[in-house]
Amino acid sequence: MVIVLRPNTSKEDINKIKNKMESLGCAVSETIGENRSILGLVGDTSKIDPGIIESNRNVEKVLFVQEPYKKANRLFHPGNSVIKIGDQTIGGDKLAIIAGPCSVESEDQITSIAQDIKQAGAGFLRGGAYKPRTSPYSFQGLKMEGLELLKIAKEKTGLPIVSELMSADVLDSFLEYVDVIQIGARNMQNFDLLKKVGKTNKPILLKRGMSSTIEELLMSAEYIMAEGNENVILCERGIRTFESFTRNTLDLSAIPAIKRKSHLPVIIDPSHATGLWWMVEPLAKAAIVTGADGLIIEVHNDPANAKCDGQQSITPQRFAKLMETLKKIAEIENKTI
Amino acid sequence: MVIVLRPNTSKEDINKIKNKMESLGCAVSETIGENRSILGLVGDTSKIDPGIIESNRNVEKVLFVQEPYKKANRLFHPGNSVIKIGDQTIGGDKLAIIAGPCSVESEDQITSIAQDIKQAGAGFLRGGAYKPRTSPYSFQGLKMEGLELLKIAKEKTGLPIVSELMSADVLDSFLEYVDVIQIGARNMQNFDLLKKVGKTNKPILLKRGMSSTIEELLMSAEYIMAEGNENVILCERGIRTFESFTRNTLDLSAIPAIKRKSHLPVIIDPSHATGLWWMVEPLAKAAIVTGADGLIIEVHNDPANAKCDGQQSITPQRFAKLMETLKKIAEIENKTI
Amino acid sequence: MVIVLRPNTSKEDINKIKNKMESLGCAVSETIGENRSILGLVGDTSKIDPGIIESNRNVEKVLFVQEPYKKANRLFHPGNSVIKIGDQTIGGDKLAIIAGPCSVESEDQITSIAQDIKQAGAGFLRGGAYKPRTSPYSFQGLKMEGLELLKIAKEKTGLPIVSELMSADVLDSFLEYVDVIQIGARNMQNFDLLKKVGKTNKPILLKRGMSSTIEELLMSAEYIMAEGNENVILCERGIRTFESFTRNTLDLSAIPAIKRKSHLPVIIDPSHATGLWWMVEPLAKAAIVTGADGLIIEVHNDPANAKCDGQQSITPQRFAKLMETLKKIAEIENKTI
Amino acid sequence: MVIVLRPNTSKEDINKIKNKMESLGCAVSETIGENRSILGLVGDTSKIDPGIIESNRNVEKVLFVQEPYKKANRLFHPGNSVIKIGDQTIGGDKLAIIAGPCSVESEDQITSIAQDIKQAGAGFLRGGAYKPRTSPYSFQGLKMEGLELLKIAKEKTGLPIVSELMSADVLDSFLEYVDVIQIGARNMQNFDLLKKVGKTNKPILLKRGMSSTIEELLMSAEYIMAEGNENVILCERGIRTFESFTRNTLDLSAIPAIKRKSHLPVIIDPSHATGLWWMVEPLAKAAIVTGADGLIIEVHNDPANAKCDGQQSITPQRFAKLMETLKKIAEIENKTI
Repeated sequence: MVIVLRPNTSKEDINKIKNKMESLGCAVSETIGENRSILGLVGDTSKIDPGIIESNRNVEKVLFVQEPYKKANRLFHPGNSVIKIGDQTIGGDKLAIIAGPCSVESEDQITSIAQDIKQAGAGFLRGGAYKPRTSPYSFQGLKMEGLELLKIAKEKTGLPIVSELMSADVLDSFLEYVDVIQIGARNMQNFDLLKKVGKTNKPILLKRGMSSTIEELLMSAEYIMAEGNENVILCERGIRTFESFTRNTLDLSAIPAIKRKSHLPVIIDPSHATGLWWMVEPLAKAAIVTGADGLIIEVHNDPANAKCDGQQSITPQRFAKLMETLKKIAEIENKTI
Repeated sequence: MVIVLRPNTSKEDINKIKNKMESLGCAVSETIGENRSILGLVGDTSKIDPGIIESNRNVEKVLFVQEPYKKANRLFHPGNSVIKIGDQTIGGDKLAIIAGPCSVESEDQITSIAQDIKQAGAGFLRGGAYKPRTSPYSFQGLKMEGLELLKIAKEKTGLPIVSELMSADVLDSFLEYVDVIQIGARNMQNFDLLKKVGKTNKPILLKRGMSSTIEELLMSAEYIMAEGNENVILCERGIRTFESFTRNTLDLSAIPAIKRKSHLPVIIDPSHATGLWWMVEPLAKAAIVTGADGLIIEVHNDPANAKCDGQQSITPQRFAKLMETLKKIAEIENKTI
Repeated sequence: MVIVLRPNTSKEDINKIKNKMESLGCAVSETIGENRSILGLVGDTSKIDPGIIESNRNVEKVLFVQEPYKKANRLFHPGNSVIKIGDQTIGGDKLAIIAGPCSVESEDQITSIAQDIKQAGAGFLRGGAYKPRTSPYSFQGLKMEGLELLKIAKEKTGLPIVSELMSADVLDSFLEYVDVIQIGARNMQNFDLLKKVGKTNKPILLKRGMSSTIEELLMSAEYIMAEGNENVILCERGIRTFESFTRNTLDLSAIPAIKRKSHLPVIIDPSHATGLWWMVEPLAKAAIVTGADGLIIEVHNDPANAKCDGQQSITPQRFAKLMETLKKIAEIENKTI
Repeated sequence: MVIVLRPNTSKEDINKIKNKMESLGCAVSETIGENRSILGLVGDTSKIDPGIIESNRNVEKVLFVQEPYKKANRLFHPGNSVIKIGDQTIGGDKLAIIAGPCSVESEDQITSIAQDIKQAGAGFLRGGAYKPRTSPYSFQGLKMEGLELLKIAKEKTGLPIVSELMSADVLDSFLEYVDVIQIGARNMQNFDLLKKVGKTNKPILLKRGMSSTIEELLMSAEYIMAEGNENVILCERGIRTFESFTRNTLDLSAIPAIKRKSHLPVIIDPSHATGLWWMVEPLAKAAIVTGADGLIIEVHNDPANAKCDGQQSITPQRFAKLMETLKKIAEIENKTI
């Protein structure tokens, strides 16, 4: 951590800051410039709240050297984390392909889609039972009934289930019915929920908030890991920018960025990122060659009549064709599907 | 709602869409252009999920005419809403000035600040008991003890209490201890929490998410109102942009925008918007002349040693001086403090 | 174009607007809703300035149906444009690989790099002679001497030259020395410059402004094409967002978006998008599988001593290795390099 | 400047970097941390291109201590700059009110508006002769004829003229006809144009690019000042964000930010920032209380028939009323109009 002081800060005021930093366990070295002095801090600064330093009126700004996360940091865990889900894994040489509808709508719908995607080679079934919708008047999901239907689909296909948890109220049911708990983009900084899932040992699929930086995503992972649950899978699903052609802007550079900074696996959601079914294929391919550990893709057997997000869902037929292409791409990357 | 069809959509496919729209209760008028046809929908479209229409592969895009919110919409409630909190109000001719520290730290701290801001003319005391922090290693608030201390501060000063609720687990305590429940920016789309506070009749201070549009803010208000609680106060607290000089970019044009679209009161948080104590004064003044119904300002008696956000807190002395200036400004706006 | 009227607009005022629209050559159909009426316009609206309509106080908003560009629009030119540069092309089945240093620094440097990239399979040499730099104190390029050196490199390798034009003052020299004129991101809306290059028949590589929408990029292409020069190649090079890990955020979804809307070729600049040499490889691959017609990549033989942008330049050795990988990727896409 | 090194950089590699920095005239102090070492640079680093340092593969990042601008920096010029334009000033206790139409349309139009705004108390007349338009098919301004008409309006009212220069081709005419040369947002980084106006002594109104940081705005001012012309007036006119209710998001916090960092005057353009005539009044007032040195406001005598931007123009009547309010506001700020 580097502290830049305001011009003309007195020797006495500098010493006060140095003493405070030393009391927090840091060694401090001072560089005196013509206009501004700077203090370099050595030691573990990851647990120092920078606001505590910036609140000093003689401090112009605080510059970060060390990342503020520890458990998610590759520096202290050089190898890639591989998360186990039943006999499947996410994070190794086998790409994790998660597919399924935005919402569970009926037994027929979810089992039919599950069977189709399984046949095409998907490894996991996604399906929303509790749905975060911008409007209170939109379909909010089948809730518990949805979880029951996912269970049936799992029994028929063997596919592990990925579903979004919106409230700790139903965490127990999720622990029973679901194999990977998804924390959605809108709840990425719902710290209470993060702590609660951090106390379980269930794998967590943590989606990047639509205006969250990569560092904030890693800090939210740190919340879960700090409670003891290190089974965290990160997911980039588009960030909010000025461009409105796509619903969000898929930030594929987040993949190499996260890979450099963290050991956690990263998957990509091209469906929510673009909101456009015809962009799913090119961006799914792009994710794989950029180094993603997997994909989460919306598949619906009747998109035009889907209860939500039909415009970003592809049909099982198109999904099967995409899987063929992805297998070729994976080979070039020395990965399998 | 206007539906723009893809070029060369067949007459038959157009009729299918028309029939579907009519089945949803809309009258449909068709305009046939050289390259594209468009369908105009008449009727209450606020409860139609646009995704359901966009999922049709012949639909190029859906353009909105009507706002998707009803209870928050000024069109159906032309007068300004005035929210009552004890013998105070928010939304009328008297500006609501909410002040206090980021976090409650001790009885001395909170009562001393409460007395100072009361003397300076503030109407409400804010103080965080449960704190949403980016890092799990930062101070997370005194929790229940914080609520107890706020209660003491209220007893000593009579100031109603504003505090942030992060989890429905402690909603009952908030209903008992707090006069206005704040929903923070990070939880603006925590729909589960919105529904739960919507089932109470406690005034809700709903902060705009840092990457939420004005329409999304109004939709989140609609979530609360749709459950029966119409005591919603909106708060603009800065949006996330590319500019990093300030922590966020305060969007003051949100005030006239919201005033035009909704009858709900709007207050401004210049402290969180900028993250810089020396910007609080100019932007607080700006908020008032732009039509805000009030302000929420961080005040701390010892910013350099505050447990959080000291860099954006002003001292009680500076706050008292600011209040003098705000009174003059309010007069020009035909308002009082 | 659809005009949404303010609630309670009088019949008389509606007629005034209808008459004005009809005088501009449009047929107008009216849809009368409970709260708001809307006017649908049929005819060529691409040349109607929406501001002229929105300036009417009874108009709430104008919604677009038709794209505002014509010559760049795929609707009127369904096949892909293929731009010819000497015996090379951009836009067909052969990917255009443009490589070279940020700045031309010396004859040795530029000819050495040119020979290396040619051997690796690049089709074009890029090199800056006139450099747009944020600081007036940074190296501004060798200017005319740089163009002379590029000419020498072309003579030695046969590679066509791509270089950025910043000012119409030197357009004549560029017409003589350069094969593709690059218009940089900062000049994407320098309309005067666009018109001037539009009067030539030189191929133009038009970079997307860092905060320009895809539609604005196409409108800038339209400026050039409207003057008669249809040899426009578009380039996505990252947009400005809140994320600061990378210099900009590469928007790969712009490729399928542009391909759907326009017939012009699109290439990707992963070097400027990320500002990080180690991200060039993954994002270059991603661009190809997303449908890009080519790449523009910074290559420097001594990045650590480059006069500009060394941190985003890769070495000729690394470039040669990247080309091997790209060839395999291209094959899957049924393209060649 | 602080250089953060990659983990495990060797002593030898550190010394190479230290030597390079010393050769650029800096003293270097080294702080050795457990995981990363940092180098603190002392001396004038404003002319060091950070890219030159970041290009070293052992450098993780470069953190800035000193601002990269000198002539625009308040550190070296503590007092406010006051720019003289005839017998008027911008930057002192008298607020500069610049008003007039988007485009000059006819002699009647411009002289009538000029007389109206003068009577209401405006100090300067704005009017576009050369217009930057997104579409090549929109009205592009009356060009030289527009400048002639502005001259007539000046002769009739004595108001100095502010008009936008888009191309150096007509700089000589602007030097003759215009009192303040405006550089538009789209040309803020047209460095060639900046250098050319920097060689004159005409006051320059430099608008912030819609996606430019405050620091980049100051760097563009530095371009002009480095050529010898220190008569620069900065203008905030809205930045591009995800919010689309307003055309851009007016960033009023830029005023205190710029005032802290620079001595140059700052004015605000609420018309372009919002694109909505009914937002001009509240935001104009807000600008004054936030510390702006003036305003530039679009006024048109017939907005519904304006050739451009009628939706953001106010009538002379409304402008006169606004001026009355602004006078009261100015008084509170100890300023005059």
